[in-house]
Amino acid sequence: MLKSRVKLVENMQFVGTADSGHAVVMDAAPSVGGSNTGSRPSELLLMAFGGCSGMDVISILRKKKQDVTGFEMNVSGEAPDKHPRMYTAIHIEYVIKGRNISEEAVSRAIELSLGKYCMVGATLGKAAKITHSYKIIQE
Amino acid sequence: MLKSRVKLVENMQFVGTADSGHAVVMDAAPSVGGSNTGSRPSELLLMAFGGCSGMDVISILRKKKQDVTGFEMNVSGEAPDKHPRMYTAIHIEYVIKGRNISEEAVSRAIELSLGKYCMVGATLGKAAKITHSYKIIQE
Repeated sequence: MLKSRVKLVENMQFVGTADSGHAVVMDAAPSVGGSNTGSRPSELLLMAFGGCSGMDVISILRKKKQDVTGFEMNVSGEAPDKHPRMYTAIHIEYVIKGRNISEEAVSRAIELSLGKYCMVGATLGKAAKITHSYKIIQE
Repeated sequence: MLKSRVKLVENMQFVGTADSGHAVVMDAAPSVGGSNTGSRPSELLLMAFGGCSGMDVISILRKKKQDVTGFEMNVSGEAPDKHPRMYTAIHIEYVIKGRNISEEAVSRAIELSLGKYCMVGATLGKAAKITHSYKIIQE
């Protein structure tokens, strides 16, 4: 059982904390009455997906002795503007920079993350169609 | 289209940013090779759900002229330990403190959030069975 607590601070600003003890500030956009002091909750889902899959992929690439010098992901989501609004499509692009990076290792690491290990992706994948791509930048 | 970028900093630490410009630090637990410098990605889903629904509920209660003096949520999630692991059940408890708070207003606000407005809840609800409860503390 994973637990978190989310507390109203003021206006539309909330602070969340969870088992690990770290706090996250969330706020709404000024256009809907917020003060933009923190992330939108909907943004956290995309960032969580990137973090979750990124941890899997980098772990696997390190085990495969890949010389990764930079790694980032671009995660975008579509959420049609009708109620109940939800993510219906999410694309994750992996950008791996390094020396003699094996494309097969990258492809396999992503496949293992998205197909097996990444809990955030598996959860979001029940609502959204998840697609991915990758770019390898050899240094 | 909502966009975010998640970048590896070091070891298992990632920093995410999204359209609103706010950054969130994520890290894994030491037991799996992380340094616990930030939230687990899986925790972000629960906090995002609390923030998303909390913004709806407090907005509606304010429109209904409810005198809320404190508001927090406890969000817990179950994710059975088999691959692909995902949230299968999430419970959100709303704790509203205030003066002459109408139980009907609270109940209706929650219903509107979970049934219509909260995008994070609608997304997670495709994977997990979402249940809720509320507690009103009259001051």
